[in-house]
Amino acid sequence: MHDPIVGDLSEAEVLATITRSLGASRALVGPGDDAAVIAAPDARVVATVDTLVHGPDFRLAWSSGYDLGWKSAAVNLSDVASMGARPTALLVALAMPDATRLSFVADLARGLRDACAMLAPGCDVEGGDLTVSDTLTIAVTALGSLDGRAPLLRSGARVGDVVAVCGDLGGAGRGLALLFDRFRDEDGNPVPVRPEELTIEESRDLATQLRPRPPVDRGPRAADAGATAMMDVSDGLVRDAQRMAQASGVTIDLRSDALGSDPRTALVGGEDHALLATFPSTTPLPDDFRAIGTVIAQTDAPVRVDGQVFDGRGGWDPYRDWDATLG
Amino acid sequence: MHDPIVGDLSEAEVLATITRSLGASRALVGPGDDAAVIAAPDARVVATVDTLVHGPDFRLAWSSGYDLGWKSAAVNLSDVASMGARPTALLVALAMPDATRLSFVADLARGLRDACAMLAPGCDVEGGDLTVSDTLTIAVTALGSLDGRAPLLRSGARVGDVVAVCGDLGGAGRGLALLFDRFRDEDGNPVPVRPEELTIEESRDLATQLRPRPPVDRGPRAADAGATAMMDVSDGLVRDAQRMAQASGVTIDLRSDALGSDPRTALVGGEDHALLATFPSTTPLPDDFRAIGTVIAQTDAPVRVDGQVFDGRGGWDPYRDWDATLG
Repeated sequence: MHDPIVGDLSEAEVLATITRSLGASRALVGPGDDAAVIAAPDARVVATVDTLVHGPDFRLAWSSGYDLGWKSAAVNLSDVASMGARPTALLVALAMPDATRLSFVADLARGLRDACAMLAPGCDVEGGDLTVSDTLTIAVTALGSLDGRAPLLRSGARVGDVVAVCGDLGGAGRGLALLFDRFRDEDGNPVPVRPEELTIEESRDLATQLRPRPPVDRGPRAADAGATAMMDVSDGLVRDAQRMAQASGVTIDLRSDALGSDPRTALVGGEDHALLATFPSTTPLPDDFRAIGTVIAQTDAPVRVDGQVFDGRGGWDPYRDWDATLG
Repeated sequence: MHDPIVGDLSEAEVLATITRSLGASRALVGPGDDAAVIAAPDARVVATVDTLVHGPDFRLAWSSGYDLGWKSAAVNLSDVASMGARPTALLVALAMPDATRLSFVADLARGLRDACAMLAPGCDVEGGDLTVSDTLTIAVTALGSLDGRAPLLRSGARVGDVVAVCGDLGGAGRGLALLFDRFRDEDGNPVPVRPEELTIEESRDLATQLRPRPPVDRGPRAADAGATAMMDVSDGLVRDAQRMAQASGVTIDLRSDALGSDPRTALVGGEDHALLATFPSTTPLPDDFRAIGTVIAQTDAPVRVDGQVFDGRGGWDPYRDWDATLG
C-alpha cells in the first residue's frame, strides 16, 4: 500500500489523517479553529506541557509511532493527575522531518487516542500544531479540572505524614537499561528489539518504558482521601522526593524494604510516572497507594533512605545525562 | 562576563535563570509544581499551541533570543484573540541544543515576558518544560478566557456580511523577503542583518517579521461589536480567507484597493497575525477594523479578488515551502 512521506503532502492532508485517527471531539470547540474551547467546570484549569524529543527522549529503532503517541499522552496525563485533577483535553504540537511516513503519523495519533481512552476516559486531543523539523519532537499540553478540589502541591508535606506511592517504581528504568544494554550495535546505535530474547519480566519492563500506564484516576482519589502533597515521579524517586522535601521544608525518609525486589532501581530509575504523595498518619491510604516512608523534620539532606543520607545519583537530568555521541 | 552553555548546567540552574527573567507569577498556581492552575472565570478555557522550529520558522543569524521569545508569544496570543478571548497564561516547551548560551535563554524569556506585557497585560508564562534537542524548538501553549462571550469561529460568516481586517497585512511577508533577498551569503546561508542598509520602511517590515505586534486586545472587542466569524491571518490573507469561506459555506470577495499600496503581498504574504473578521453589514466596524470585502453566496472559488478568481499562490504551507537545502 502506498505510504507517502509528509513532505509530499499538504498540511491539510496530514491533518486529515491525524483527525481521522483521533476520532470525534467532545470539546465545546474542537479542532478546526484557531483555538479549542474546553470546559473548566469549577472556573479553574490545570495546565501542563511535556516534550519528547528524538534522541534524548526516544529512539525510533525502539519506539513505534504508536508507542510515542501513547507515551507523550501518558506522561502529561500523569502530571495533571498529580495535582489531584482529572484530565480534560490534550493539545499536541508535532514537529517532524519531511521524510516521516504518513502511516507513522497515523500510528502516533492512534497511540495518543488510545492512551487517553485507557488512562483518562473523557479526555481527547482537541487541538495542535504541525511543523517541519529536522528533529522529531512532540510537545503535549494537558488540561485538567480539579472539580472543586484544592490543587495538591509539592509544598504541602508535613512532619509526621506518611509518604506513599501509587504505581510502578523501577520498571521503566529497567526497561531503558535493557534497551541500552542489549539492543544497540557495536557503534552504540539503537537496533530493533528482538522480543523472543526477552523474559516475561523483561517484556513487562520494556512495555513500562515504552507505553507507561500511570495511575491517572488515582490522583483525584488521593486528593479526596486527604493527601497533603503530591507529585509525579518522573526523574527518579529520590530526585523527585528531594524536590517535594525542599518545597515543603522537610526531610523525607524512605524505607528501602518497601520498594520491592529491586530497591536500587526504584530509588534512582527515571520515568516511573508513579504518584508520590503524603498523607496524615491517621488517614487510611486510598486504594493502590502503599506506604514507603515518613516525613520528618528537616535535616541536612532532603531525602534519607533507611535513616541514612542517600549517596547515590538520583534520576535523570537531561542536561547532564544525554550524550549525543551515543546515537 | 562568563556565559555558560546549558549543557554545562543542571536543569534547575537553567530554570532559575528563566524564572528570574520572567518575573512574578499571577496564577492560582504558577511554575514549580507538576502543572499550573489558571483562572477560567466563565468555566471555559480557550487553548491553542503553536511551534517555532529553527530552520523553517526562524534562523539564529536573523533572530535574537529576545525576538524568538517575543514572536513565539505573539503568534499564540493572536490565536487566542481571534476566538474573541483574552489571553490568561502561556506554557512554554523549550527544546534546545546543549551548546545554547545561558544568555540566549534569558533573552528568550525576556522576549516572552515583554510580548505578554505589551500585547496581553495580565497574561504571563505560568509553566513549561525544558528538554535537550539538536534543533532549537519553542512550542508555546496559550490559554484564554472568553469572559462569557460566545467563541468566534471560522464558520460564522454569512452572505451579506462585511469582511474586515485589523492589523498589518504584508509587512511580515516583505520583511521575510528582505531577509532572504539581502541577508544571505553566496551559499544561501543567513547572515546577520546590517541595519544601516535598511530604509525606514524596510526596518519597519523587518520588525513586523521578527517581533510581530498582533492587535490582541481587538479580538474581544470584535466579538463585543457583533462579529460573526473571526480568525488569525497567519498563512496569508487569501489562504486564510479560503479557510473561513470553506468553513462557512460562502465565498469571500476581497477588494484589492482596500489592501494598501502593496496589495499583492497583502494577499499572499504570510505571518501577518492580523485579525480577519466578518460583521453584519449594518454593524459599525469596531476601532481599527477596516472593510476589505464582502461575503457572497458560495461560488466555485472560495475567495475572489475584485470579483475575479484569484489565481496566485496563497500563503505559506510548511510542508510544501520549506527547502532544507536553503540552510
